[in-house]
Amino acid sequence: MSQLINGILKGDKRSISRAISIVDNNEPDSIKIIHKIFKKTGNARTIGFTGSAGSGKSTLIGRLAAEFHSLGYKVAVLAVDPSSPITGGALLGDRVRMMSISDEIYVRSMASRGAEGGVSRSLRNVIRILDAAGYNLILVESVGAGQLEIEISNVVNVTLVIFTPQTGDSIQAIKAGLTEIGDIYVINKSDLDGSAILYNIISDLIGDNDKKPVLKCSAKTQKGVKELAKSLVNLLDDKKYLSRERSILEYELRDIILNIIKEKSIDKIMKSQEYKELVNKILKKEIEPYNAALNFANRIIT
Amino acid sequence: MSQLINGILKGDKRSISRAISIVDNNEPDSIKIIHKIFKKTGNARTIGFTGSAGSGKSTLIGRLAAEFHSLGYKVAVLAVDPSSPITGGALLGDRVRMMSISDEIYVRSMASRGAEGGVSRSLRNVIRILDAAGYNLILVESVGAGQLEIEISNVVNVTLVIFTPQTGDSIQAIKAGLTEIGDIYVINKSDLDGSAILYNIISDLIGDNDKKPVLKCSAKTQKGVKELAKSLVNLLDDKKYLSRERSILEYELRDIILNIIKEKSIDKIMKSQEYKELVNKILKKEIEPYNAALNFANRIIT
Repeated sequence: MSQLINGILKGDKRSISRAISIVDNNEPDSIKIIHKIFKKTGNARTIGFTGSAGSGKSTLIGRLAAEFHSLGYKVAVLAVDPSSPITGGALLGDRVRMMSISDEIYVRSMASRGAEGGVSRSLRNVIRILDAAGYNLILVESVGAGQLEIEISNVVNVTLVIFTPQTGDSIQAIKAGLTEIGDIYVINKSDLDGSAILYNIISDLIGDNDKKPVLKCSAKTQKGVKELAKSLVNLLDDKKYLSRERSILEYELRDIILNIIKEKSIDKIMKSQEYKELVNKILKKEIEPYNAALNFANRIIT
Repeated sequence: MSQLINGILKGDKRSISRAISIVDNNEPDSIKIIHKIFKKTGNARTIGFTGSAGSGKSTLIGRLAAEFHSLGYKVAVLAVDPSSPITGGALLGDRVRMMSISDEIYVRSMASRGAEGGVSRSLRNVIRILDAAGYNLILVESVGAGQLEIEISNVVNVTLVIFTPQTGDSIQAIKAGLTEIGDIYVINKSDLDGSAILYNIISDLIGDNDKKPVLKCSAKTQKGVKELAKSLVNLLDDKKYLSRERSILEYELRDIILNIIKEKSIDKIMKSQEYKELVNKILKKEIEPYNAALNFANRIIT
């Protein structure tokens, strides 16, 4: 264990990878690792990337990673993909390798399967490992959709939402609540038809929510990528986003507390004779499920 | 309220729709409605339908609804679509209308937005309303994907999983855990190329899990639909699936209990001065999040 910890603190990639696997698989050593490195954390800032499949997210992240690297940041990229731990990371890895900066940018995918909140819990701890290893800018790609993107937006300093001028993206975005979670919005593939219209729609939609920036870029032609990187650096330096560290922690702490309580409650329910009797009573229509649950819950927690 | 309850028990569609909206929106009257009708429930059986978009789910459900109707069942169809309450139901409604049996088959979509477990909670109560209103066979279409389908399979008597001979469906199915939740598997669009190969793959996959039936059909040409309806009726009459009522109730009761405990815990956390102090301590690196959470959780629940 102490070898692993030393490896992480020295920035040894093998140690980092092993530690991330341990945390991602929620192995018992996870808590020990975080315990040992916790005091060495606190320097990294995080950007979350969200957008539908086909929005060019991975390419854009690759470009931005290179851009941030040239600005002097020590960059790590995390692809969070609960459905498939391999694909996302491999794809991203390829993108970054193509730019021949793979040695200096750490790229990794994580699965974070499991219960509600599982993603944010393990993601927070994976970020701590990279932070302790000296990475000071961590780009988090959400490969999944829906709830996952909202979860990720709760654990990063800045959330970037990507749109592309393709069918229905603006409507999908509203439906998925994407126009509520972003701190900055990007119309990618700005070389395509329809990008100007989409820019106007998104600007209108966002405009009412405290004037968050809406930018255009093309990851393919690199147009606008430098400007986007600068805007992101500005946001990361903004007091408002720095102070988000507190709300991220509050969210995380609440999440861990609720998870511990849930596990304990399930244990109590499963061991309870009364619970089995309640089910019998419901089947006989002597009591309704809601009232039965309320009585039972009130005995577990007052 | 008593007018609404009487309306439900008489099978008045307007009353049923209003009651379902109240439950689906989780309005305060939900609990009262279920309280009033609970003793009149217990006759309905439920079939859940699961399968990727484009699998022809809605068409097949429309065909089966007509088939069950002709077998003497009083049929209701529920489309559960957390992302869009309108589309699913409208589509299904159109399908059923096309078969000109719309007057006797009740078709409805529900959104069931909200927290984890929200779908199963409101779905269970919507099923109770239809049950009390005299519908004895309720077909539940899962319009969403992933977690939703697994949730629905926990609250219905029989789960049907639909596959189609289209790219990657078998691989997607394994990834999504679909081959674990079904009680019966159907290869729809059996008139298309590749359906025989898909049938063999799925049969192989399923074969090891207690010999669950795998059938072929074409909702479009109606080939195999009658046979599928018969298989479903057999499953519904099977003791094994009837006795599932108990496990459905156990799941529901546990879910409601955990939800009540969660809400109470959030309330306690938010009102706690100690919680705010813990966040300060974590920010100062005096304590780690996990240990802080453990201490706090142990005081809420022992």
